[in-house]
Amino acid sequence: MIHPQQATPMPFTKYVPFQDQIRVELPDRTWPDKVMTAAPRWCAVDLRDGNQALIDPMDSERKLRMFKLLVKMGYKEIEVGFPSASQTDFDFCRELIEGGHIPDDVTIQVLTQCRDHLIERTYDAIRGAKQAIVHFYNSTSVLQRRVVFGLSQDGIVDIALQGARLCKKLEETIPDTKVYYEYSPESYTGTELEFAARICNEVIDVIDPTPDHKMIINLPATVEMATPNVYADSIEWMSRHITRRDSVMISLHPHNDRGEGVAAAELGYLAGADRIEGCLFGNGERTGNVCLVTLGMNLYSQGIDPQIDFSNIAEVRRTVEYCNQLGVHERHPYGGDLVFTAFSGSHQDAIKKGFEDMDKRSTAAGTDVNGIDWGVPYLPIDPHDIGRSYEAVVRVNSQSGKGGVAYLLKSEHGLDLPKRLQIEFSRVVQHKTDVEGGELTGSQIWEMFADEYLHSEDAASRWGRYFPLRSTITGSDEGVDEIESTILVDGEPHLITGRGNGPLSAFVEALATIGVDVRVLDYAEHAMSSGVDTRAAAYVECAVGERVLWGVGLHESIVKASLRAIMSAMNRAERDRISRGEDDVVISRPGGGP
Amino acid sequence: MIHPQQATPMPFTKYVPFQDQIRVELPDRTWPDKVMTAAPRWCAVDLRDGNQALIDPMDSERKLRMFKLLVKMGYKEIEVGFPSASQTDFDFCRELIEGGHIPDDVTIQVLTQCRDHLIERTYDAIRGAKQAIVHFYNSTSVLQRRVVFGLSQDGIVDIALQGARLCKKLEETIPDTKVYYEYSPESYTGTELEFAARICNEVIDVIDPTPDHKMIINLPATVEMATPNVYADSIEWMSRHITRRDSVMISLHPHNDRGEGVAAAELGYLAGADRIEGCLFGNGERTGNVCLVTLGMNLYSQGIDPQIDFSNIAEVRRTVEYCNQLGVHERHPYGGDLVFTAFSGSHQDAIKKGFEDMDKRSTAAGTDVNGIDWGVPYLPIDPHDIGRSYEAVVRVNSQSGKGGVAYLLKSEHGLDLPKRLQIEFSRVVQHKTDVEGGELTGSQIWEMFADEYLHSEDAASRWGRYFPLRSTITGSDEGVDEIESTILVDGEPHLITGRGNGPLSAFVEALATIGVDVRVLDYAEHAMSSGVDTRAAAYVECAVGERVLWGVGLHESIVKASLRAIMSAMNRAERDRISRGEDDVVISRPGGGP
Repeated sequence: MIHPQQATPMPFTKYVPFQDQIRVELPDRTWPDKVMTAAPRWCAVDLRDGNQALIDPMDSERKLRMFKLLVKMGYKEIEVGFPSASQTDFDFCRELIEGGHIPDDVTIQVLTQCRDHLIERTYDAIRGAKQAIVHFYNSTSVLQRRVVFGLSQDGIVDIALQGARLCKKLEETIPDTKVYYEYSPESYTGTELEFAARICNEVIDVIDPTPDHKMIINLPATVEMATPNVYADSIEWMSRHITRRDSVMISLHPHNDRGEGVAAAELGYLAGADRIEGCLFGNGERTGNVCLVTLGMNLYSQGIDPQIDFSNIAEVRRTVEYCNQLGVHERHPYGGDLVFTAFSGSHQDAIKKGFEDMDKRSTAAGTDVNGIDWGVPYLPIDPHDIGRSYEAVVRVNSQSGKGGVAYLLKSEHGLDLPKRLQIEFSRVVQHKTDVEGGELTGSQIWEMFADEYLHSEDAASRWGRYFPLRSTITGSDEGVDEIESTILVDGEPHLITGRGNGPLSAFVEALATIGVDVRVLDYAEHAMSSGVDTRAAAYVECAVGERVLWGVGLHESIVKASLRAIMSAMNRAERDRISRGEDDVVISRPGGGP
Repeated sequence: MIHPQQATPMPFTKYVPFQDQIRVELPDRTWPDKVMTAAPRWCAVDLRDGNQALIDPMDSERKLRMFKLLVKMGYKEIEVGFPSASQTDFDFCRELIEGGHIPDDVTIQVLTQCRDHLIERTYDAIRGAKQAIVHFYNSTSVLQRRVVFGLSQDGIVDIALQGARLCKKLEETIPDTKVYYEYSPESYTGTELEFAARICNEVIDVIDPTPDHKMIINLPATVEMATPNVYADSIEWMSRHITRRDSVMISLHPHNDRGEGVAAAELGYLAGADRIEGCLFGNGERTGNVCLVTLGMNLYSQGIDPQIDFSNIAEVRRTVEYCNQLGVHERHPYGGDLVFTAFSGSHQDAIKKGFEDMDKRSTAAGTDVNGIDWGVPYLPIDPHDIGRSYEAVVRVNSQSGKGGVAYLLKSEHGLDLPKRLQIEFSRVVQHKTDVEGGELTGSQIWEMFADEYLHSEDAASRWGRYFPLRSTITGSDEGVDEIESTILVDGEPHLITGRGNGPLSAFVEALATIGVDVRVLDYAEHAMSSGVDTRAAAYVECAVGERVLWGVGLHESIVKASLRAIMSAMNRAERDRISRGEDDVVISRPGGGP
């Protein structure tokens, strides 16, 4: 077999291989023979490294929401900002402390450069916290020493030591706060190991940690420069050369420039690190920090408790997307829309047999599926553990051959369905074709969509149990909306009212007054751009009782489209309930007497 | 420092650690001491593994476009489908062969299960090709043997050997095609190594490859089950235990379930593999295949020729996004919108000094920047090498504090700017605030946006050199549009005409007739959803001569919005030209005489 690949015209010769820049030699490395057995100490840096890499940084409402999410998930060390560099970060730090938002077992962390006025400002920011980690850094790489600082190794060490000494001194000014320290030789991956060890050890001597009051030495892959085994070698080397190792926690902070941040974190952890810093879904400078969701769930999939709660991954993702204003990719491990989906027949068949085997074994063992070893082909974890489900999707091409259902709905009907709704509707189509057989035309697919999701004026026969009549929404000064709606339930009009911080939440509250349990999980909308159609489309993913399904509403008013979308989901849940022969949901009149 | 992380309530105990499922022991491994020095043989599986994992699979037009892109980039082995499982794949295979689309030095590859009728159909699909790789597979993992096939190891080996023998026999039926073979023990990562070696070696004996006519043994991480060092150990073990190693190419096919596909490929390559299969931007089943762009550019960043041309990464990305109907994430290495962006002052300062140092050194060496070693902090490669640029972005918050420029334009003006346009406009805002100083109000930001991008009826003073008067578009039966436009250039009306497969390309052709060099690189549009505004917004990234910049157009008609967007980019390029004191672009009347 000849090898016909050709040379590129690109100027690759200008790059110096990593091994010619930094020497990392450890022929007696031990990490490749190790396996992980417990979770590291986690530190979430979404509010600092993540936030500073956003086109639109989080406002204080978003920051607080992110902080509360991290706390709820179980993170105990949270870097909340760079308060000396940003007034917004400073204010947020004060808000956390003065507003009493920090639980006793959570430690906030703040970043500062090693400059006197910045360190002083940092101590002002954390005053009053029960405990805090002051994270100081200076850049140590060969490149930055030469190009940015024009300093010798001694000059760079002096910057770090002066910072460390000032920190120790300022500690006395906030006696009510228990202060811990973290030092980062920034751009560590571009630093000679001998020099990295020297500067860290000199800093350690100044900070003077003890086994009972350790300090953190953070070794960031500020830029990911080599394969992850090289990073692991360097961590094992450092772990051997850090003095007072029993008083030091070695921390990793991998970035993802080569797409290997997760591997760098895991191999570095095998190599002796104690702690990992990262962001949910890999937000952070440039290609991002290492993804904390992937790291945690990777441990989980090996039978190791991540000590973080990922059981509602959809909620985690929604909050992260809201706060960062960046999406999570369809193929992102554990959280992406497509990662528990099987399209090919052979995969679907194997998965089906895997589930059948799980049922058989759990029945034989007299337990549920959580009581036996997981083993389903193509599904590394049980999607239910994180609140998701496995989706078997058979693609149906419309007769035009023009790329299927989603394409058709978009090009011919102006509807741009969210990915998960596309998957859900594909299953609806599949189910109907299984039952009815035959190839589908474009208009048949549209009929199916309309029949399944869309409001029909013919209330009794097609629309379902719930039917909207009229709604009035009143917005108040504090941003609270009030809704008064009349809806038909089984043909009977019900007047319901509710309040919320938007029309949807008000409507959901109103529905609760008559015993309808519906929650909005996800939401998307767009104007319909096809020709003269001036309607808006709203897509709402709802939990209706135990069921999670989508609803769709179209209307000239975006608000009414949204309300219809919720009722669409309610009616779909109702049809599903009937087809399963389950009990009726009894509708109560709000505040009604006997 | 106490360790307050708490146990999760999630059922992690049901997962069996990988090392308790499959034994991979290689204490005398050699791969961690190796470094990469040359590109592997690449195989692109976008049209097979990638395509079969799409919600809407590619139609034949998209498939051909993807194939041509892969060929143009330099891929010489391209898996084009699973022709025996899909009529569309079969037809595409025939179209490639009969349409003469396969260059002589490119080898197509087709996948088939080891089943007689599927193998037979596969040979029908490749008949007439100059050469082809027949890639046959069966699943070999402990789990699939038990749950899916209910067969012993011997039974699984029989399936593979029967397939191999039939392949050899059918080879005689297509004497004009040079056939190569690839065998995959599918679900390799869940297979005992001893058994994987046994089945591969027995298959090798049947196929009977030689050093001059090698066969490929592909060892897929069908599901990524462990850290990448374990995969590498397994590859080194297999490389030692494969017989007739000089007649075999070991191939990797990593999936990304743990987010470590790139690392698995690189460490597996160090461990002795010869070849890597993957997809552009990591498309593929579930979490995707390993990303070929990341792998190639990782080599590149180490001074190694990837033998693939990534010099126009934007074009690669656009084509991939068009074909897959999936986006590339903002933080995807090398190709994401945000990966060459610096938001923080200290990073920007270091990068600036890095560029200054590059200038100094290249001047001293009497060469350009490609003639000296690359070294700029925070930029692992020179963005220009792949047709991108470094963006220093200072975020400007509007007075409301509500999350900045993009938020403001969206919430108050209904404009949903593409990410790269957000970045571009942030720089415009930054430039103006640098010049004028002070904090910005929301209306000031809007004025800046309108002034920079939007059409003004006050043609002479604000809109610029080019001004649209009227356009007529005629669509013909074959999908070709013709445009007749009157535009003002320096106040003079010009009537121009052009044809193209859409209004934009027709307009671009029309502009070319008067000497205006503009090309459309990227395009986005949406209806404006704010209240009664029924306009559409169009965003167009254009190359105007040497400049790449965005234009924006708003209009009730989406077509007119698009034309305005192009003229917006042209006028912005013109203003830029004037500010740099460059020569005028001379406008010629089309078909004019002396």
